[in-house]
This record gives sequence, C-alpha cells and structure tokens, in this order.
Amino acid sequence: MNIEQIFVGTELLLGNITNTNARFIAEQCVALGLTCVGQTVVGDDESMLRNALSTSLSRSDFVIVTGGMGAADDDITKKTVTDVLNLKLVPDEKLETSVKKYYAGRHIDEPQNARKLYSVPDNCTVMYNENGITPGFIIEKEGKKVILLPGQPVELEGMFHKYVTEYLKSSSPEAIATSTVKICGIGENEVSDKISDLFGKDSNPSVTVCAKTGEVHLHVTAKAPDEKTALKLIKPVIREIKTRFGFDIYTTDDSTTLEKALVDLLVANKMTISTFESCTGGLVAGRISNVPGVSDVFKHGHITYSNSAKMKFLGVKKKALDDHTAVSAEVCEEMVKGALLSGKPDVVVAVTGLAGPDGGTEEKPVGLVYIGCGVKGNITVNEYHFNGDRKKIRESAVAAAITLARKCVLEYISRSTFG
Amino acid sequence: MNIEQIFVGTELLLGNITNTNARFIAEQCVALGLTCVGQTVVGDDESMLRNALSTSLSRSDFVIVTGGMGAADDDITKKTVTDVLNLKLVPDEKLETSVKKYYAGRHIDEPQNARKLYSVPDNCTVMYNENGITPGFIIEKEGKKVILLPGQPVELEGMFHKYVTEYLKSSSPEAIATSTVKICGIGENEVSDKISDLFGKDSNPSVTVCAKTGEVHLHVTAKAPDEKTALKLIKPVIREIKTRFGFDIYTTDDSTTLEKALVDLLVANKMTISTFESCTGGLVAGRISNVPGVSDVFKHGHITYSNSAKMKFLGVKKKALDDHTAVSAEVCEEMVKGALLSGKPDVVVAVTGLAGPDGGTEEKPVGLVYIGCGVKGNITVNEYHFNGDRKKIRESAVAAAITLARKCVLEYISRSTFG
Repeated sequence: MNIEQIFVGTELLLGNITNTNARFIAEQCVALGLTCVGQTVVGDDESMLRNALSTSLSRSDFVIVTGGMGAADDDITKKTVTDVLNLKLVPDEKLETSVKKYYAGRHIDEPQNARKLYSVPDNCTVMYNENGITPGFIIEKEGKKVILLPGQPVELEGMFHKYVTEYLKSSSPEAIATSTVKICGIGENEVSDKISDLFGKDSNPSVTVCAKTGEVHLHVTAKAPDEKTALKLIKPVIREIKTRFGFDIYTTDDSTTLEKALVDLLVANKMTISTFESCTGGLVAGRISNVPGVSDVFKHGHITYSNSAKMKFLGVKKKALDDHTAVSAEVCEEMVKGALLSGKPDVVVAVTGLAGPDGGTEEKPVGLVYIGCGVKGNITVNEYHFNGDRKKIRESAVAAAITLARKCVLEYISRSTFG
Repeated sequence: MNIEQIFVGTELLLGNITNTNARFIAEQCVALGLTCVGQTVVGDDESMLRNALSTSLSRSDFVIVTGGMGAADDDITKKTVTDVLNLKLVPDEKLETSVKKYYAGRHIDEPQNARKLYSVPDNCTVMYNENGITPGFIIEKEGKKVILLPGQPVELEGMFHKYVTEYLKSSSPEAIATSTVKICGIGENEVSDKISDLFGKDSNPSVTVCAKTGEVHLHVTAKAPDEKTALKLIKPVIREIKTRFGFDIYTTDDSTTLEKALVDLLVANKMTISTFESCTGGLVAGRISNVPGVSDVFKHGHITYSNSAKMKFLGVKKKALDDHTAVSAEVCEEMVKGALLSGKPDVVVAVTGLAGPDGGTEEKPVGLVYIGCGVKGNITVNEYHFNGDRKKIRESAVAAAITLARKCVLEYISRSTFG
C-alpha cells in the first residue's frame, strides 16, 4: 500500500519553519508497514494543491494532507480537497458545539471566521482535536483515501495517535519490521562496499545507508504478511551485519547516540571521564553532557585553548610546546598525562589540532588533529586529517574523540577481563 | 522567477532524518527574492525522480535537486537528471585528482565505486566540495536551470554560499538587493509586532521574519531594474529597523553570527573571556571558539559539572550549595566571583541550570537556568525559564549566555566611555 504526504503552508516555502511533521508522519507510516513514495510541499495556493493532490491520488492509495486547515482566509485545504474529490461541505453540529465551548471556556468572543471550522466534507469521518479547535477528516471516495490533519505539530500528533494509526492498521494487508545498526569510525563508502552483496533493488529486507559525521547508520526493513514473519526476515541480515562490523557497531537501538553509547559503557563499568580540549573548544564535553544522567560519570572538563592554559592546567612543559608546537603527538600525550593526574578521572580525552581557516603550514595543515585517550594509565594518541571548514573539522574531531574513547575503554575492559 | 526544490533520499521518506535542507534552501532563495512554489521529496527511485523533475521543469525556471549524489549504488540523482535533460556524463580530471587526494590524505584505499564521482554532466558548471568529496553541478539546458547539490547539510550549505547564491543573483532579470538584520534577546512575536507596519503582502521591499534559537533574523529584500535602485529602496527600511531595535541588533552582516559579534566586540576592546559551565557542559565555549581567531580573547574555559568541581575550580562554598542548590542565583554569583579571580579574565560567563529531563521540582522546574556575567568586577545574574527538551533547553541557554555577555560588555564600555 502506497502513501503520499502533502504539506500545505507558505511558511514552509519561505523557510520560516522546519517541516518536522514530514518526519513524524513518515516514521509512523513506516512503522505501520506503509511505503511512503513521496512528499510534496505547496504554499497556501489552491491551484498548486489541486495539482499535487490529483498527482498523488493517481498513484497512491492513501494521501495525507496537513496544514491550511484552520479558519483564516488563506486556509484553503478543506475546501480544495473537497472540490477535487467532488464532495460537498456540510455543517457538523458536534463541531459547532465544541468550537463554541472552546471560546467560552477562554472568555473570548468567537471570531466570525470560526464558523468555517463547523463544515465537514460529506460522508467523512470527523477527527476531533484534543489539543486545539481545528478538526481533521478521513475521507474515502472510490477506493482512494484522503486524511486531512491540522498543521500544528502537537495537534497533528495527538490526532494521528488517536485516530489515524488505528485507521491505517485496519487498512493494511502487510506488516513491517525495521531495525537500525549504527557504526562509528568507518566511512560511508567503506560500509556500503562491505555490505553491497546483502541487498539489491527491491530486496526484502531492504538496507539503506545513511552517512552522519563520523558515523554511518544502516536501516534494515522487512515486509511480510504478519509482524512475526517480518521480524524473522530481518534477523539473519542483522546477524550478518554484526559479524562484518563487530565492535565498530556501537548500537542497534535507534534512539541511542554515539555519546550515549560511550556514557552507558562508562556507567556500566563505573568509570569517570574528563575532557581536555583545545581546537574543539568544549564541544566534546558538550556532546557527552547532552546525555541525561551523565553526571554519574562526567564531573568536569577543561578547555585549554591557549598554550599558557595547557601549561597551567595540564602541566604541559614549555619545551614540548617550543619543540613540537601545540598541535603535535608529543603535546597531546603530555596533555593526557597531565589530565590523568588532575582530578584522577578513569578516562581522559585530550584534543589538540588546527581547525583553521588560518594557521596551517605544509608540515601541519589545517585539519590536522591529534586526539589522545588515557584509560587508567594506558595512553593512545592518534593523528587525524579532517577536511572541510572550521565547523566541519571540529565536528569530525568531536565524533573521532568520542569514537576513540569508546574504543580505548572497550580495549581496556577486554584486556582486564581476558588478561 | 520561480524556483522548486526536489529532495532525493529514501531516508526522508522513512522518517530517519528531518529535512533541514528544505528550510535552509527556502530561506536562502527568499533572501534572494525568488519565489519558491513547491518542494518535492522522492526516494532513491529513478522513476519518481524523473516524474518530479519533469513536473517541476514544466512550471518553474530553476529546480534545485539535493541528495542521492554520492558514490553508492542507490545514489541515482546525477544519472537520472542527466538522462531527463538528455545530456551525457563525461569524465572530469580535476574531480578525479581531488577525490584521489582526499583518500590519500586519510591513508585509505580509494573504494572502487568512488570513480562514480568523477563523471559530470556535459557542459555544466562543476561545484567542488570543500567539506566532502561529492561534487555539485549547475546545468543550463534550453532555458531551464537545474542545480544539483549533495544532501549532507554542511556540504550543501558550503556549496550554496560559495557558488549558488552568486549564480541565482546573476540569473535574475531584476536586480535584487537584500539585507539581513539580526536581533538577539527578543522573541519572534515581539519583533513581528514592532515592525508589522513596515510591510504588507507583495510590498517592495519585503520583510521576512525568521526565528532562530535566541535570535530573530529579518530579511529585507527589494527588487528593481538595477541594483542601485534596489539598494536605495532598502536603505530607509533598514534605517527604520535600526531605530526601533537599537543595540538588540547585533549585526547587519549576513555572515556574522552572534558569537562572532561577541568575539569582535572583545577583540576591539582588548578584553579576554572565560566560560564556566554546568548544564551547558561546554557548549558556550564550543560556540564562542567556533569563531576563527578567537584565541586572542579566549584562553580557557571550564566545565564544572559536579558540585565538587564547582567548589574545587571556582571556590563555590559548600554552604551555598547546601542552602540554595547548584541551580540558584546565589551559586551562579559565587561561580562568577570565583571565576573572575581564577586566571583573571576581563569577562566571565557562568551557567548553571536544569536541562532535564529529570531532576525538576515544582520550585525548581526543568528549564530553569541562571546565567551570570562578570565584567571587571561588575556582576549580573539573570534567571531564565526555557522550554523544550534537554537539547533545546541547552541551546537556548547557550544563546542567552552569549547575548548576556554581549550586553554586559556593551554596558561596561558605555559606562567607561560616558562615565
């Protein structure tokens, strides 16, 4: 069963808001086993909406239209969709009562245009709004199904959960299962190469590859007559992916981030971490500390941006800075050593590099970053070359620092467990 | 001149990612005076992309296509667009060199499919990628213009600023002048209310209001037969906006960020700054240190996440923490006082708050944040209530901290200049 989404709102075309409804609806539909084949955004423009709706209806079973459902003059969705489907708008008493009650409860005079909200497409299912006054509708006409929802995310989401999920489920002949595998420290192309034999076009399960800064996410999705069979189809593919990538997989839980994987690992092993950053200027700490409950393992971090701060807070020697410059494996190692002494955390991450745009030389180009990690006295220092602008280099360095910390902690645990 | 956007990527239809590119491109186009008439999202599906492109080309002058531009098997955009436009793909030596250099610099063997990146549509303008290896293209064919961009936001944005803006400007039959006014510390509705008399529907110049976290951007755009006239139209509007918002405007330069405005102010007044963060966990420092050349004013920062770190590094007294908790005006003030002594920076920013999701009480709810700023002994502590999830609360706090630092420095300078 194919589904399409149409979003109505000039504010989307002006870039005033991000279309978060698109992702919400897509996620919900995928979880219900529906194939989303397209999303279209049009302004508050009757003719563009007409065209988009006709195109979508010609190729898809379900069309979800959101936005432009209110009482304002430029809210044209209900009228336009009703016209395209050759239906009539008829008054709905229950809606009228609920709108009047809404205004009375707020001691506001009902605006004149509110009556626009009372009318509903003939023979439809009305979806009453628990988070506002704009209703939604489910319309069936000659085998086609159109679902109209208000554009406000909180209203749309409430209505979706209350009415639409059940409606779509009852209409679906297939079940779907989906699973995510998140990999760090390997590039997108290398990941694709390594699994390209696992999936082809239209294969079931399908695998999609999604590149992020410093990580790659794989989404494995299977369709089957029932959920159990769909899950069964996914299992061997996930198992095979796990064999191929091993510890480079940091999670198979869609909601777990790289920083959460590190924090969970530290919590499970009762280890504390401190960060000492130069070029990343606090972003490693900032990302780690976005994990709720991080305070059990993260007590303090430092941004030793200047050479004098590196000497004062980390005991880096002037000679090391003079001989090798601040961006060197030697200074990075001294940072880790000094950091392991200060406050005695179990794990230390230190970053020093050239984020640019200025300051690069042939020998030490912009993008050169040293990342050091110390786990209870075991020190690793790696050299990285990142490209991109200052922001991109810093983001890459942050991801690499968290990836290295995770790797060093895993190695430490494996050493102390297996000797 | 009409413009349409097409986004290619099954991950968008699966709801795996939010389409932030749509908003970025829309905003950029609006600032250039272009009318966006539609956005379409298709999966990695040749036939859907073909249909979408044909429809868009039939009614719009420019079509911007993003995503599906990489080397993976499911990256079908370049080939499909080239086919629809009846062009050939030809090899590009410069691209081949840059891709080979990219892999060599990372000591990675070039994957076999990378060669897919070398080919370019015949007779197009190649846009080289400074933040990755996937190139973009500008294609003109029989009066239609198609712009192809990679889907990774940082790559797309860099390429847009470097190539696309200038190209769109030069393609317009009318001259477009555009100017941006960036305001901090005032909400979107208040800003809109204050300037609603300055523009109406279809007015020239037009003013669009764009809300960001902790700031509001106004884009003033005028169209005229020539640039001089367009600029002339803009000037009085900008002047009026400046009168209405005064020092809350931190820049009228589109490329200047809030953190750059602060750093520039510090550099101009030869003042140093240090940051001391609890709930923002390094993100204030991280944002400030994204400004190139920040090392002249930013020497070090500290993340005093735990109470013990607040005592050890800032001399916060145990009694203050016991009596008022870490999230209080009293502790925030002690943090600023301690910070002004440590390392003796001219300016200190201290943040302590509850980012949630847990730990809130009726008296101290999640979202409560205290931000303190000290400028050479003058201390200000403000209480804020932010809403949203942990990430949103932290982002809001970071913006508020930088806004407060800017305000306190401006006040200090004005006091020391005018007594």
